[in-house]
Amino acid sequence: MEFLQSYKTLFLDYLNDNKFGRPPHNLYIPVDYILTIGGKRIRPLLLLMAADLAGKKAETALPAAMSVEVFHNFTLLHDDIMDEAPLRRGKMTVHEKYGSNAAILSGDVMMLYAYKYLENYSSELAMKLYKIFNNMAIEVCDGQQMDIDFETREDVSIVEYLEMITLKTSVLIGASLQMGALIGGLDEQSANHLYHFGKNVGIAFQMQDDVLDTFGEPKVGKQPGGDIIQNKKTYLYLKTLELVSEEEKNELLQLYATKPKNPTQKVARVRDIMKSAHVLVHSNEVKSEYKNLAFSHLDAIKMEEEVKDKFRMFGDFLLNRNI
Amino acid sequence: MEFLQSYKTLFLDYLNDNKFGRPPHNLYIPVDYILTIGGKRIRPLLLLMAADLAGKKAETALPAAMSVEVFHNFTLLHDDIMDEAPLRRGKMTVHEKYGSNAAILSGDVMMLYAYKYLENYSSELAMKLYKIFNNMAIEVCDGQQMDIDFETREDVSIVEYLEMITLKTSVLIGASLQMGALIGGLDEQSANHLYHFGKNVGIAFQMQDDVLDTFGEPKVGKQPGGDIIQNKKTYLYLKTLELVSEEEKNELLQLYATKPKNPTQKVARVRDIMKSAHVLVHSNEVKSEYKNLAFSHLDAIKMEEEVKDKFRMFGDFLLNRNI
Repeated sequence: MEFLQSYKTLFLDYLNDNKFGRPPHNLYIPVDYILTIGGKRIRPLLLLMAADLAGKKAETALPAAMSVEVFHNFTLLHDDIMDEAPLRRGKMTVHEKYGSNAAILSGDVMMLYAYKYLENYSSELAMKLYKIFNNMAIEVCDGQQMDIDFETREDVSIVEYLEMITLKTSVLIGASLQMGALIGGLDEQSANHLYHFGKNVGIAFQMQDDVLDTFGEPKVGKQPGGDIIQNKKTYLYLKTLELVSEEEKNELLQLYATKPKNPTQKVARVRDIMKSAHVLVHSNEVKSEYKNLAFSHLDAIKMEEEVKDKFRMFGDFLLNRNI
Repeated sequence: MEFLQSYKTLFLDYLNDNKFGRPPHNLYIPVDYILTIGGKRIRPLLLLMAADLAGKKAETALPAAMSVEVFHNFTLLHDDIMDEAPLRRGKMTVHEKYGSNAAILSGDVMMLYAYKYLENYSSELAMKLYKIFNNMAIEVCDGQQMDIDFETREDVSIVEYLEMITLKTSVLIGASLQMGALIGGLDEQSANHLYHFGKNVGIAFQMQDDVLDTFGEPKVGKQPGGDIIQNKKTYLYLKTLELVSEEEKNELLQLYATKPKNPTQKVARVRDIMKSAHVLVHSNEVKSEYKNLAFSHLDAIKMEEEVKDKFRMFGDFLLNRNI
């Protein structure tokens, strides 16, 4: 999507001009590291797009775009410690490269800078942004805790799974759009609809991401079948449990109680059980429902149809990656 | 100090009425734990006092008082992981009791709630509070990083040490008073002087705390001589290095290169070298200088003298604990 590329270029230039690079260096070197090793930059890009389409220059929204990107990367630093993840974006994670203590403290200061960037707006606007940000950020922590709790729980429901991914990943997508829209001068009600558009696109995107993780082509820097290897209770897993015979259910439960050193066979067998349950039909249906819900919120926004089409294009783009 | 006690009671009641106690429980149980196992509550108490003395009901300042106390306790959770500290306030630290991951994530959500509490004020006032809070919180992280860096540095200067304690502990004392004063309606310039009063009292307090740690009576829940055991490069240590003979200097450097299992002898010998250097004369002098600097800022504040006397009483109270 070409019109998205211009926002990305704008953001990357800003990021490059605003490297931390200050003392105490052991605190800020990990910050610059994680911010510059890549990433899709979806959240800042959405925020800039929303501000632009709502009627202000995208440049006005750059500090807020930085805020959501720095916040997102703070969560990666702390989550990667908790998950003991060795790689992020195909590179060493911060805790592997600089130690856990550095990942904790550099993460902390990133969260604080996420707030600091929002100082750049007038009091009234900034307070609106702070309130959205506070609620969103607390929800992200709640979602991360639910994700951790699920690891040791045997009775996770699909509703709970959807709640978890909503909190852990989708509210930040929604908030990025909402904040951008408010900076762009959109009315609060429309900005709120844009939040729900983003949140529901985010849920659909996560459903798709789970499918790609389990059935997609192996990618550089990503472990294929990672969710299965880590026994993640995704929609695919939970729905399969509902659909298969008692025998296959027990087999799946048993496979998910192990973490073999060589997981190839386990991954293959779990995939086969999931396929036999035709679970992709169901996950595609759920994904479609969330996509439709997302698009219905666009209808309620007071904006010209051609402008809304850009959001629709973005939704289609994000939700049409192939398996 | 009786008039301080009333603020403490007010705060503890508020804290008790505002327990988190909500799901996901594994996230909020550690938060309620650390907030209820005690602590001197100096920061919220100062904030309430400042608001009250500036002319508003102390109750108005309760959400902000909660904000600084929750923030302070967030720093304890993360610092205790980094220091591998087993005890806090004579009780198990959060990471010992609930695990490191819990201490990371519960700490994160506490930081976010510290921001959320400040939503309770009007946009204009809240923005002033957010700006003070952002700068203070980033400085606290900078100070913590300096403290960590000092562990492995051999060339720490006294100036750097004073900078470190200023950032790590004193700016939060200053900010608590400043925020309370603004909530109480004091003009910005006077509130700024109150910040500097608090910051410098905080530095003097830390100097005193270092002396108590090294030469004070053993206390419940605190390791006597803890700074020496952990080879902390305090003012006492750094100044002693300046004052003693080459021979004693080398001995002290060598003692600080060890972490014996039974530290009794080491602690005794370091104390003796420090005493032979008469380092307490110097540390008391520095403490007095910061106290005088603090009190000079009170002179510049537009308040009745009887009101200022309360701040003076507080300063005297805090800085007159005996060895």
